[in-house]
Amino acid sequence: MTTTDETQTARPAGRPRSARAEKAIIEATLDLIGESSGIADLSIEAIAARAGVGKTTIYRRWSNKEDLLVDALAALKSPLPPPRGVSVREDLIAYLRVFQHDACDARSRCVMNIAMNEVERHPRLVERIRQAAIEPRRAALTALLRRGVATGELRADLDIPIAMATITGTMMWYIRSVEPSEHENIPEELAERIVDHLLAGLGPR
Amino acid sequence: MTTTDETQTARPAGRPRSARAEKAIIEATLDLIGESSGIADLSIEAIAARAGVGKTTIYRRWSNKEDLLVDALAALKSPLPPPRGVSVREDLIAYLRVFQHDACDARSRCVMNIAMNEVERHPRLVERIRQAAIEPRRAALTALLRRGVATGELRADLDIPIAMATITGTMMWYIRSVEPSEHENIPEELAERIVDHLLAGLGPR
Repeated sequence: MTTTDETQTARPAGRPRSARAEKAIIEATLDLIGESSGIADLSIEAIAARAGVGKTTIYRRWSNKEDLLVDALAALKSPLPPPRGVSVREDLIAYLRVFQHDACDARSRCVMNIAMNEVERHPRLVERIRQAAIEPRRAALTALLRRGVATGELRADLDIPIAMATITGTMMWYIRSVEPSEHENIPEELAERIVDHLLAGLGPR
Repeated sequence: MTTTDETQTARPAGRPRSARAEKAIIEATLDLIGESSGIADLSIEAIAARAGVGKTTIYRRWSNKEDLLVDALAALKSPLPPPRGVSVREDLIAYLRVFQHDACDARSRCVMNIAMNEVERHPRLVERIRQAAIEPRRAALTALLRRGVATGELRADLDIPIAMATITGTMMWYIRSVEPSEHENIPEELAERIVDHLLAGLGPR
């Protein structure tokens, strides 16, 4: 997607129209995923109808439903900021802020829900979602933790898989335990408080 | 459920038969939840057929699908052991072991998936599942953390909601990141390692 809403309004023909259709198709797909209880009942027909395009417009860009779903779900994920590298603590907070933003977004939760719940029924799709949306984050977090062990900002005997599960799982579980209508009341400094609790530990100091 | 497989075989009539039917209905419900992509497509007809009973046998015990679902899902959860009270560390490990057992059980994951994903479509059902299966655990964990703060085994300024999210979320996220086929290879001492990492913290000692 290279167009913005402004160029779409100003130039309604040619390539922008194509980009506009693509955006409408992606949005329609995400809307329908959010409304359905799974991806099995999602059809190209329904997506085309919701997007206001013909089925052929969809098939010109995506050869099947799975390809479209992977693109739609990948489009939901906020890009990770590159680590600033000043301190591991700061970079962990920045990482968790992006994660918090996505976890509070109703449609972004679809990515995780599909990745978690559809693996038996759609293993290839889930694998592709993992590669597109989940693995890059895991790789970034792993690199960050390794850097912290190397610099001495994290304990030398850090168990990386447990640390990853702690950092991501704490934020995920915290958000999940809050009613969506209460998401706006989540404290501004949540990511910071989580990171400081995890670094110092739950035990007495 | 007061009967066991042995009494069912030995005494095929009367009350045991009724209990056997109940068990078959609960099992059929759980099987079908595990196979479906949601609870919307679950019907009393399908459950009756799978359990090998008539619909009236189901309606004698449960007045509607929702009541049956709540009982079936509550039956999945392992009971929490009462805290032994020797140390907060030990009780946290025992808590996480039960949680790990459930998280590795394909059907138990249904409880969480429904509680997480169906709240918009079935708010009353999700609320009842929370009360039956999730709130008792949250209450037990809260009490355990408060005890730890009181005894000095946990830091005096512990943020209870963050600590709860950390303890539960770490185990949940760890299990979710492991392929179900690899669950048997999860290290025996996972709960212990998680608790020790969280108590001591990820930072240098």
